[in-house]
Amino acid sequence: MPLTSDTTSLLLERLRSALPAQALLTDPAELAAHARDSAPFSACGTPAVVAVPRTAGQVEHVMRTAYELDVPVVPQGARTGLAGAANAVDGCVVLSTAAMDRILSVDPANRLVRCEPGVTTRRLAEAVAEHGLAYPPDPASWDRCTIGGNIATGAGGICCVKYGVTADYVLGLDLVLPDGRRMRTGRDTAKGVAGYDLTRLIVGSEGTLAVVVGATLALRPARPPALSLLAQFPTLTAAGDAVAAVTAAGHTPSALELLDRATTQAIVDLGTHALLRPGSAATLIVESDGADPSSELSAMEILCKEAGAEHIATSATVEEAYEIIEARRLVSPALAAYMASRGGGLTAFIEDVAVPRSALPVLVGRIEEIAERYGLRIFTLGHAGDGNLHPTVVFDESDADEFRRAREAYDAIMAAGLELGGTTTGEHGIGTLKREWLERELGPVSLELQRGLKRLFDPKNLLNPGKVVTA
Amino acid sequence: MPLTSDTTSLLLERLRSALPAQALLTDPAELAAHARDSAPFSACGTPAVVAVPRTAGQVEHVMRTAYELDVPVVPQGARTGLAGAANAVDGCVVLSTAAMDRILSVDPANRLVRCEPGVTTRRLAEAVAEHGLAYPPDPASWDRCTIGGNIATGAGGICCVKYGVTADYVLGLDLVLPDGRRMRTGRDTAKGVAGYDLTRLIVGSEGTLAVVVGATLALRPARPPALSLLAQFPTLTAAGDAVAAVTAAGHTPSALELLDRATTQAIVDLGTHALLRPGSAATLIVESDGADPSSELSAMEILCKEAGAEHIATSATVEEAYEIIEARRLVSPALAAYMASRGGGLTAFIEDVAVPRSALPVLVGRIEEIAERYGLRIFTLGHAGDGNLHPTVVFDESDADEFRRAREAYDAIMAAGLELGGTTTGEHGIGTLKREWLERELGPVSLELQRGLKRLFDPKNLLNPGKVVTA
Repeated sequence: MPLTSDTTSLLLERLRSALPAQALLTDPAELAAHARDSAPFSACGTPAVVAVPRTAGQVEHVMRTAYELDVPVVPQGARTGLAGAANAVDGCVVLSTAAMDRILSVDPANRLVRCEPGVTTRRLAEAVAEHGLAYPPDPASWDRCTIGGNIATGAGGICCVKYGVTADYVLGLDLVLPDGRRMRTGRDTAKGVAGYDLTRLIVGSEGTLAVVVGATLALRPARPPALSLLAQFPTLTAAGDAVAAVTAAGHTPSALELLDRATTQAIVDLGTHALLRPGSAATLIVESDGADPSSELSAMEILCKEAGAEHIATSATVEEAYEIIEARRLVSPALAAYMASRGGGLTAFIEDVAVPRSALPVLVGRIEEIAERYGLRIFTLGHAGDGNLHPTVVFDESDADEFRRAREAYDAIMAAGLELGGTTTGEHGIGTLKREWLERELGPVSLELQRGLKRLFDPKNLLNPGKVVTA
Repeated sequence: MPLTSDTTSLLLERLRSALPAQALLTDPAELAAHARDSAPFSACGTPAVVAVPRTAGQVEHVMRTAYELDVPVVPQGARTGLAGAANAVDGCVVLSTAAMDRILSVDPANRLVRCEPGVTTRRLAEAVAEHGLAYPPDPASWDRCTIGGNIATGAGGICCVKYGVTADYVLGLDLVLPDGRRMRTGRDTAKGVAGYDLTRLIVGSEGTLAVVVGATLALRPARPPALSLLAQFPTLTAAGDAVAAVTAAGHTPSALELLDRATTQAIVDLGTHALLRPGSAATLIVESDGADPSSELSAMEILCKEAGAEHIATSATVEEAYEIIEARRLVSPALAAYMASRGGGLTAFIEDVAVPRSALPVLVGRIEEIAERYGLRIFTLGHAGDGNLHPTVVFDESDADEFRRAREAYDAIMAAGLELGGTTTGEHGIGTLKREWLERELGPVSLELQRGLKRLFDPKNLLNPGKVVTA
């Protein structure tokens, strides 16, 4: 419901009492720019104001003010999310934590870092690397996305298969509740079980329970240099067999990525990757950063051959490893090139579904069938080692029929994931996009508790309303 | 409040309608045996009945019945807990999940296991080892404690320093809510972010939110053979320096245990450990199961020497490694021998406090001061790599003054832990023992939310009432 102009005036007046003019954006272009994240198929409204606080005190003021005036607040990081969780609602305060971007301390003795939510994942990773430490989570948008957004969505990435996801690194959080009260969760210690785990409850809650204004994150020793291999397979089953064999042999590669036929071909069509050959049903990219990556990769190369790989390229040096991994990085440019070849104006919708690892080849096959059934191009790549796939549906939003088919294909992919014992989101979240699917996945009892949690933290339903669960 | 005998009769009658006679214990000796876990300083009541269901359906019946009759239910595993979380309250149903001990399936392709809550940690670990897999969490009582209890307390262990705690392995849970409704949380996939993380909320909730009737646990490849070293230091500071140096050099040992002066001496006094020498201020036991444990241990040996170790023993074989680790296993026998030497009848209270790793030597020193101030023997051992200490206070419960001093020393240790930026429980939990300390550690806003969570899951406050938080 849009606010009255009186409420908006009062809101702005009160916000101006504690935030400087440049921290409050009301220019229509700014409002439009902050209206949504990177998800299609998801409605968004127009914010009344975009607040860009620099301190936790300013966040408290924003929250308190909005709470008193019954104005909804939508937290935003870098808007790289893919589920609509950061989409504005009409008349809301968009609360961008992007300017709270300080790294407060790196503590090598305790292998942890304290930072504000607006620091980008890449900057954090590079800062701790200077101390010989690693912050492993590496979502695809890591040079733009923020730690606050990573915490909100429970972000994953490529190296999760070995190193875990964002949730595994969050030790403690500094929060502002919907009514403006401040609180800390968690701890600065490696272990701790004092009370119910509120830290983990906030991680992945998509900004619906509290606003993260600070985080204590665990770090690891720097990752050793990695080597990699690329293997192409004549059938999906063969690629799936290779993944299963790698797992069964007890390997834990630091990346185990799969590109389907369409994605492989799109990269080949780019013409810039020397190692990738045309015509394969599936490509695996495998990286090892173990103590002896060369021998681990040799062992995995043999397993790929035994599974029926028709072409394998391995790296002997870090530079060659980079060249192999480049195939994974070329997915976005390849998709962009494909879309340009179709005359532009298309939408690429990056999906997210996870199944038990062993069901992955079946799911890839189902997605190929779905693409055919709906007459769409779907490019599937995924974290094969985790069973987490990202089918990208490319479609023309201005073509009503194609839009409908894309929507139906998306639903068919979710249904296939659940049918194979999986989840409708491995790492992108629910947002507005998957609320109905969440209800199907969880069932009524769990859903009732999820809604109860939302009410407990946000009884007035003002913080990011309508995301994850409806009130 | 004790129940009326009418309610108890009705309760038993209804329970008998769905559970066989041998699953309902009412013999006074059985009621007494199930009245408490292994924590001292903690009140307990007398149960009306001990129910030992074999199926989730029977658990549902017990919960529904108790809910309808407003009878409290206290879940129990093996009663090895050290915080009073499994202590009975008067007139309650003790719900023992010990007989629900089936391992339902081991799934090597997806590196997971499904089991019932009553299986012991050791049996689960041995069962998955037959498939070349590992379930790493290794609490000290692993041959008796159950997976359900491990989940309830968020149990840790020695190898957590490298492999993480119970919480890190729980993918999904099958639960019965206080009103008897059944629900699942989590997933069978490696990754998933669908909705608020109820799985993690249940882990460590000490049986106060729901009863675990099944678990899906993640597994790892089998751990490689380990080698170890033992290093003795003239001062606590020197031992702390060695731990810091090991961390700074990027090592991640699979065990990094510290024994203080009193504990070292008690083991020496046993006379059965050939490698441990008398007179040291601190002993470190370091284990590596890395790809090249021999060279990793050599590197750590040098760091120990540089930190001032006065005596080092290293293992060249797995058998020698076992001999070294035996020092850690001898802590309990050594304490028992000390207690016998004082004429028996003493209580050994194993405490649990964690601080940031770098503060560990300071905390050990503080504990030694506390022991002196209160005229007590305190034996401190701990997971030095995690900053998690277990000071064991030995005292005579029948001596009112010694009992009071032990209680005060316990409080002083908790206070020291918090003052050093730590937590009052690293892995044992809150139970009834640390409720007041939890309130100090969390502060009022977090505590209000913790209580709200309890009300959300258990509005009638019937499930394990009075544990973790008061209603």
